[in-house]
Amino acid sequence: MSIADRLAELGHTLPKPAAPVAAYLPAVEQGGLLFLSGQLPFRDGQLVTGRCGEDADEAKARDAAERCGLMILAQVEAALGSLDRVARIVRLGVFVSSAGDFTAQPQVANGASELMQAVFGDAGRHARSAVGVPVLPLNALVEVDAIVAIRD
Amino acid sequence: MSIADRLAELGHTLPKPAAPVAAYLPAVEQGGLLFLSGQLPFRDGQLVTGRCGEDADEAKARDAAERCGLMILAQVEAALGSLDRVARIVRLGVFVSSAGDFTAQPQVANGASELMQAVFGDAGRHARSAVGVPVLPLNALVEVDAIVAIRD
Amino acid sequence: MSIADRLAELGHTLPKPAAPVAAYLPAVEQGGLLFLSGQLPFRDGQLVTGRCGEDADEAKARDAAERCGLMILAQVEAALGSLDRVARIVRLGVFVSSAGDFTAQPQVANGASELMQAVFGDAGRHARSAVGVPVLPLNALVEVDAIVAIRD
Repeated sequence: MSIADRLAELGHTLPKPAAPVAAYLPAVEQGGLLFLSGQLPFRDGQLVTGRCGEDADEAKARDAAERCGLMILAQVEAALGSLDRVARIVRLGVFVSSAGDFTAQPQVANGASELMQAVFGDAGRHARSAVGVPVLPLNALVEVDAIVAIRD
Repeated sequence: MSIADRLAELGHTLPKPAAPVAAYLPAVEQGGLLFLSGQLPFRDGQLVTGRCGEDADEAKARDAAERCGLMILAQVEAALGSLDRVARIVRLGVFVSSAGDFTAQPQVANGASELMQAVFGDAGRHARSAVGVPVLPLNALVEVDAIVAIRD
Repeated sequence: MSIADRLAELGHTLPKPAAPVAAYLPAVEQGGLLFLSGQLPFRDGQLVTGRCGEDADEAKARDAAERCGLMILAQVEAALGSLDRVARIVRLGVFVSSAGDFTAQPQVANGASELMQAVFGDAGRHARSAVGVPVLPLNALVEVDAIVAIRD
């Protein structure tokens, strides 16, 4: 089954790849690794904003992390032509906009991590860092970057 | 001398490798590099928590960074079978839970950096970023991730 | 034209490469990639300090990000002998000291990103993450790390 078919089976539709907010590229390939820029969460074309523990809860942020993951997949597809060229999701970096007493960043980040495993199986299992930050670009709730290994 | 012997000589005992807090892997190898997930500080099986400049000082945080470093080594050993397969500590990413007026993140991060140099010598000298964050998973005091080059 | 000539044409003078604040290296080469440690912004030998949205505005921070970028180039030159050995700026990681209501991290980070494009052209176009943090080492306003691909 192609990855595109697997995404459809899971009920996911990839968003339109977001243009970079500024002077950089969404993805750069070097030596068999694709480096993805930090992606923000969009739902129905709208940025998901807020801060965990203030105006957003864990469930909303977890969903936002999944939306970041879908945007990463959209950027990978745009860069490589097909998600079938993904050999491995190597690493995710997850930044969660957090009030000082919100400590469930791992559960939030699972929104992106579990997506990768559902889509790619064992090849979707990755290393990860998840940390709290006080604020993200455009007041986004979550930002996720990635390193992806690609096949020739 | 093996790295295990060198650790013993330094008086360090590796912790039991912590299971990932969530849906990811502690380490992923790709193209000769081992990407380590962010590791939290444990002492006697207990997570070291707090925030620098509030309920933790520089000395405690520096010790916590060393504990993160030991957990990284435990994860590397679990992933590779032996620490003797480490060719180089390439990079550490250090996140320090910090009040807004705490600016000694480099001194805190040295707890992990100096460990790597003591254990691996020149091969333990690495690139590094150290930043403050408002909060970390489970209220951890420090989180450290790593990229390690491995020999065949 | 050499990169050194291009820098001069742009009116930039590289700073003296800063010694690491602590126990790490400014740059480590591994497998054709140069990993740069997080660099702080210096102007006339003085660290640029502050927090966006409190005692620094977007323009000051954007300039500070450019200074971080120049320090990255100074470290690359020191590590490689010549900036002409840069094959590609692969990735920048930009940390912006930010009050909770400051959300223009992308515009700030452009200070570094646009420098790389001006100096290296297409080879300067990179992947990037930009996030807010509550505080940086020595109260720096911005910190930028990098991954650079090098030619033999």
